[in-house]
Amino acid sequence: MELTNAIRKQIRSLDDTKHRRSLHLFKAEGTKCVLDTIDSFTLRYLIATYEWLNHNKIDIDRDLVMQVSPKEMERLSSFSTASQVIAVYDIPDRSPDLRSLSGQLTLALDCVQDPGNLGTIIRTADWFGIRNILASCDTADMYSPKVVQATMGAISRVTVCYCDLVDTIKSLPDIAVYGTFLDGTDIYKSDLSPDGIIIMGNEGKGISDDVARLVNRRLLIPSFPEGRITSESLNVATATAITVAEFRRRSS
Amino acid sequence: MELTNAIRKQIRSLDDTKHRRSLHLFKAEGTKCVLDTIDSFTLRYLIATYEWLNHNKIDIDRDLVMQVSPKEMERLSSFSTASQVIAVYDIPDRSPDLRSLSGQLTLALDCVQDPGNLGTIIRTADWFGIRNILASCDTADMYSPKVVQATMGAISRVTVCYCDLVDTIKSLPDIAVYGTFLDGTDIYKSDLSPDGIIIMGNEGKGISDDVARLVNRRLLIPSFPEGRITSESLNVATATAITVAEFRRRSS
Repeated sequence: MELTNAIRKQIRSLDDTKHRRSLHLFKAEGTKCVLDTIDSFTLRYLIATYEWLNHNKIDIDRDLVMQVSPKEMERLSSFSTASQVIAVYDIPDRSPDLRSLSGQLTLALDCVQDPGNLGTIIRTADWFGIRNILASCDTADMYSPKVVQATMGAISRVTVCYCDLVDTIKSLPDIAVYGTFLDGTDIYKSDLSPDGIIIMGNEGKGISDDVARLVNRRLLIPSFPEGRITSESLNVATATAITVAEFRRRSS
Repeated sequence: MELTNAIRKQIRSLDDTKHRRSLHLFKAEGTKCVLDTIDSFTLRYLIATYEWLNHNKIDIDRDLVMQVSPKEMERLSSFSTASQVIAVYDIPDRSPDLRSLSGQLTLALDCVQDPGNLGTIIRTADWFGIRNILASCDTADMYSPKVVQATMGAISRVTVCYCDLVDTIKSLPDIAVYGTFLDGTDIYKSDLSPDGIIIMGNEGKGISDDVARLVNRRLLIPSFPEGRITSESLNVATATAITVAEFRRRSS
């Protein structure tokens, strides 16, 4: 393959959610990120320096590889220190079967907007064996380069389904719906089921009113010493991790 | 106060660790970040638009305030969407009394390099009542704008002491030193003391060999299902949160 101006333009356009969605493509940049994803997604093309290709013997169709100069990589890279490799993949069509959620633990994200937080949550979900995440349509896009990077490869093992959270959760009958609130019940003193939905809210505003109404088990991660008055809260990826870890501890 | 070119230059220079350290100054940018910090640090000056000053009635010496146009804020701001306020503070001299650490739970960071991770760890420490963090000299600077932002005000309540970790920990006799490792003992099946040092390592390389030798209690955060083989790990701020939450759960 030859690097054309159209490809240069396409790579840059993939920083943008709208373009990713219309092209059904996303990119991974940097050695670790590319090696973490290359076996799990359908490669459209890979751009790398001679040095990178020489050091990383990967088993891919040579027709999909474009070897470029370090100077060219500097122009293509979104990083301040240019990476040596960029891979462009098809966005896979992986919707979870909603009926299967009833026996599992599932995360639901209500407008989590920071890509780093979303990426970290996907990585945490992978560690704790959560296969599906429901996300409101205003949650960050899982295929944004910063999210892909932060998942550290977990993006290939966890499915994120963008949907209307209220409609979707309402369609799941008799399921336990958990959420963390400052006036919830101490998570360590609460019954936790091995399955159900755990809702995590927006960085600034928390869980929206419409979604909060669906929560039937309100939890609190207690600060220490317990009851200490603090106006502050935990980062959403941090709160997700503590909550999911406690669910899994109970199930082990 | 009048906005001079020297001040414009100084504000920009505070993006850089070296300049912050030589000037003993740091900056907070954006409404939430400034309001979270203004009562806890000594203000050198505050720059804001008329609109911001009008909406935020804060009790500070008017001589320290520079009112500027939104256009000027665009030039001064480090954000892609210009903030309406920047505050510049003295870096306080707050070293913890090392002798006092023996009765407390303390975090030690061995080359945590991502400012977002450090900020989140400081915020988590605050939530869980950890007052002091030891940090190796190659850990991100706590006064970098991204760290200050990510702490959400916790920077005013948690002390980070940059030091030689090996020498410092060795100087604390008979203290339990914990660290998480992939070959450690399941944290949920381990005895955890109410005090001690919890070491967290670098994002890519984990805990360095020299520091790992000081660990006398090796822990593991188990993945789920337990024993599932995964080449991956947890984000360092996530692992810190799960570990500290479990220590505090036992002490409650």
